[in-house]
Amino acid sequence: MDQVDKIISPSWIFDAEEGDRVLQDHSIVVNDGKILDIVPTIDVFSLYEASEAYQLTNHLILPGFINAHSHSAMSLLKGYADDLPLDTWLNNHIWPAESQHVGFDFVKDGSSLAIAEMIKGGTTTFNDMYFFPEATAEVVSKVGIRANIGLGVLDFATNYANDPEDYLTKGFAFRDQWRDHKLITTCLAPHAPYTISDKTFETINTYAEQLDLGIHMHLHETSQEVEGSIKEYGVTPIQRMQDLGILGPKLMAAHCVHVSEADAELLAINGVSAICNVSSNMKLGSGIPDLRQLLNCEINVALGTDSSASNNALDMMREMRSLSLVSKGLNMTSEFLKPAELIRMATINGAKALGLEEITGSISKGKRADIIAINLDTIESQPCYEPLSSFMYSADRSSIEYVWIDGNTKLNQGQLVCLDEDEILQKTKIWQSKIKKI
Amino acid sequence: MDQVDKIISPSWIFDAEEGDRVLQDHSIVVNDGKILDIVPTIDVFSLYEASEAYQLTNHLILPGFINAHSHSAMSLLKGYADDLPLDTWLNNHIWPAESQHVGFDFVKDGSSLAIAEMIKGGTTTFNDMYFFPEATAEVVSKVGIRANIGLGVLDFATNYANDPEDYLTKGFAFRDQWRDHKLITTCLAPHAPYTISDKTFETINTYAEQLDLGIHMHLHETSQEVEGSIKEYGVTPIQRMQDLGILGPKLMAAHCVHVSEADAELLAINGVSAICNVSSNMKLGSGIPDLRQLLNCEINVALGTDSSASNNALDMMREMRSLSLVSKGLNMTSEFLKPAELIRMATINGAKALGLEEITGSISKGKRADIIAINLDTIESQPCYEPLSSFMYSADRSSIEYVWIDGNTKLNQGQLVCLDEDEILQKTKIWQSKIKKI
Repeated sequence: MDQVDKIISPSWIFDAEEGDRVLQDHSIVVNDGKILDIVPTIDVFSLYEASEAYQLTNHLILPGFINAHSHSAMSLLKGYADDLPLDTWLNNHIWPAESQHVGFDFVKDGSSLAIAEMIKGGTTTFNDMYFFPEATAEVVSKVGIRANIGLGVLDFATNYANDPEDYLTKGFAFRDQWRDHKLITTCLAPHAPYTISDKTFETINTYAEQLDLGIHMHLHETSQEVEGSIKEYGVTPIQRMQDLGILGPKLMAAHCVHVSEADAELLAINGVSAICNVSSNMKLGSGIPDLRQLLNCEINVALGTDSSASNNALDMMREMRSLSLVSKGLNMTSEFLKPAELIRMATINGAKALGLEEITGSISKGKRADIIAINLDTIESQPCYEPLSSFMYSADRSSIEYVWIDGNTKLNQGQLVCLDEDEILQKTKIWQSKIKKI
Repeated sequence: MDQVDKIISPSWIFDAEEGDRVLQDHSIVVNDGKILDIVPTIDVFSLYEASEAYQLTNHLILPGFINAHSHSAMSLLKGYADDLPLDTWLNNHIWPAESQHVGFDFVKDGSSLAIAEMIKGGTTTFNDMYFFPEATAEVVSKVGIRANIGLGVLDFATNYANDPEDYLTKGFAFRDQWRDHKLITTCLAPHAPYTISDKTFETINTYAEQLDLGIHMHLHETSQEVEGSIKEYGVTPIQRMQDLGILGPKLMAAHCVHVSEADAELLAINGVSAICNVSSNMKLGSGIPDLRQLLNCEINVALGTDSSASNNALDMMREMRSLSLVSKGLNMTSEFLKPAELIRMATINGAKALGLEEITGSISKGKRADIIAINLDTIESQPCYEPLSSFMYSADRSSIEYVWIDGNTKLNQGQLVCLDEDEILQKTKIWQSKIKKI
């Protein structure tokens, strides 16, 4: 009998692969942080001896969620300026507050708050874009969550850097420091077409090609962004990115709310991943992404929360449910989007977008053990005729009871075991009293 | 010093009245089930001596939610048939299952499951429409929740009754039995224009006028319903109801998804309340209610969950947030709909729709004490720059820790104290194994 680290025996496993198969009464065998085997529970204990065995008879197991677009440190600005349009929100509230407060400590404490919320909500990997990435990386390393951390670039000065060269110098210094960490990957993160010049994009593209790095950026978030680009450049932002050679399978395009047929084709032909952030888009009044259009073009669609300053939650279950319901409502077809499809967007599609599909995003032998367990034996989720349906439409994130990342337990019986919630809450309140409301 | 039953001292109180005022550091004094006083916390203990005092220093107090459209017993069919359009869902799945299983015990056990979920989610009053209302009333009475229970009418036979006369005879017998219960009111509940003939509507209208009863019905839920009416009657269902004299301030019109300008005017002129059920409408692919149109006409808009067979949750916080976000997204204006407006729809507007505004729906001296407390000191809700914003956009129903109905404690530190959750779950599983999936 092989000695292994963990055996997890739930009622149901959905691996997030094509085919929508839900395995019943199977066990996941975890060793050295890896999914070693998936076998019928009736056989597992005659094959393996485990240090820890989890009998989860009321639970659905899924791959951990991949939050494919976040600005985690902005959780300290959660609820700071609500019910405002994107430009007022950014120019009059968020950017002034950031210029006053953002620094290494802000990013470190904001990232802790965000990561605590994300793990409780079943997120095991996040794709972050912000300043002082070394502060986020410090928390990521301490907690043991998986992260793709962007090297942020803007054409203008912030508390973090002065000009594009300065951003990139600092970004690459950060990258060099953390490049060997097993849970951290990096990518280039130019903010958006309306904050980055062609010249800077050209530099970024050169680095991306030389270093084989992904690019994470905002693209077609608002109709004003598209109109502004047509006015300034004569083409839409997507067409401009095509002309600059930025479109490609390594581009993670956050938002894609206002996309013409021609632009959707450009995304599709180039293998760009679109990252939907439907709660943030709706709350800021930016619009609602046309999921049917993106899927009709066979674009890889992943999901993100955007920041807590615009969402105001880092809850991937909400994102799945909201995108599902609003897409059914807008298209007036309830058959559109089965729960399994949404779960794939929140897991394996995110892994593909981030270039991590060999490592995570599905429950597959050989992948790292990024796994979550949801208790469906609750007043809210019972009866349970179909576990994916109970998960998608009835359960909340409060039903997530276990989270394992790279094989390590991060949430145990609903309790965070990798971060001190009280300490985070105390620090958050100190930041709130400093920041106040304008 | 006056002796009273309860003093509740939270950080914030939003009374749901106009003006959007949030009271800080005030206490609610409850006696004999009534809100006796609201005074600064600094003064309260020199004025009153309480049997129970609640120091809720991290909590927001709101009026209990009013779920203005439910079919509570259908919680036993939660997740039974998802991702289907309304007609297939009803004709091929729900109605066959109902004809096989619905009876007194189904309704009693289904209502228990629904009421447990509703109380945990902050609902203190619900407006129900189903069969065997005496079974629902039995649970309502035992649990001590407030309910407006419809006397269901259809033109065709079901397990409950054979024809309109039979429905009404049984309904009035139920009404006579329960008319003196302090938490139960009744109304007439003709199912929908497409299942009720003119003749039956005339009978219902006569009873409504003679007995001064409200009417609760489905109206303009799908575009097919509107088109079908135009084909059969030459007018929309709303116009037909106007011709039949059904439109009036006592009409609770559930859904109102597809409403022309002329029809909206008819609802407004007649003082009809519209009850939005946005999750159910989106999930069934029926469409998305145009909240801006309804509000522009100054129609009283209340919120409901519809049944758990179509939603699949009885979560008023989800309904508020979903309607808010989708309305901002569709109208591309983030300023549209402040949290206070949504909370009014879920509380005082519901009370107005049900004719209970003298009794419940706001935190006001003299009203019955239907009150809930939400803990905002969580990783999910902190920082809290503005409590209504934290409540609306960040918190989930799992943060609801206290529910009082008619002055009695129903949820205490997040634990139901009026129902046995384990017993409900056991019974639910027995029903599930009987019902199975077709």
